[in-house]
Amino acid sequence: MSEEPIDLSAALARFDQLWSPRIVTRVNDYDVRVAKVAGEHVWHAHDDTDEFFLVLDGELRIALRDGVAEREVVLPRGAVYVVPRGVEHRPSAPGGASILMFEPSGTSSVGDRHDPVPDHVDATTGHRL
Amino acid sequence: MSEEPIDLSAALARFDQLWSPRIVTRVNDYDVRVAKVAGEHVWHAHDDTDEFFLVLDGELRIALRDGVAEREVVLPRGAVYVVPRGVEHRPSAPGGASILMFEPSGTSSVGDRHDPVPDHVDATTGHRL
Repeated sequence: MSEEPIDLSAALARFDQLWSPRIVTRVNDYDVRVAKVAGEHVWHAHDDTDEFFLVLDGELRIALRDGVAEREVVLPRGAVYVVPRGVEHRPSAPGGASILMFEPSGTSSVGDRHDPVPDHVDATTGHRL
Repeated sequence: MSEEPIDLSAALARFDQLWSPRIVTRVNDYDVRVAKVAGEHVWHAHDDTDEFFLVLDGELRIALRDGVAEREVVLPRGAVYVVPRGVEHRPSAPGGASILMFEPSGTSSVGDRHDPVPDHVDATTGHRL
């Protein structure tokens, strides 16, 4: 937990890797993470936690799958969305985006169940900024 | 938890009351709240939880008191800060601001310990949007 405020734009300027969340601060036993994203992430689900997304820049899409039914939500800059625990989802950002996430510390970026993880996706519980 | 993304600007446009947080969504047993603020809040402390602030618009100041030592952090738009549990603090926004907060559901806006609450401060665990 930082003694001073953290500017999110400055935090994002400190790294370039896509789909590789950085932990900017903690709130109790939750992480606040930021990530730069572009293209597609991987289908995955978190069995034990909801996952909060806030779009800081660009546009994020989140495909959601419930059995065979699939839909997609679109988050412009300044929009928030919570993926409920257990719901299979695949974030994507055709034009690129910067996002902020809240989730319990230790939550894997590819969840508890996932499709094969492509090379461009970092399977991580978040890196230090 | 909403089935659709929530635009934070649209959420903020739905109310005018200052220092009166609205719950926009939940993440597990945490609330994501937004508030419009201007002038001074009240000195208070949350004994059992950290409190996360993100400035969506304007500038937020948070005075922090540890015994007799007092300091103030300044958060421009796009900055985040976590007030650690137990730390007495008083948010203020001389020029007005819109903020997002993340804290356990049921957390009071004036904490567990506080100075007398002035009329312009809403002592609440958050209102529905």
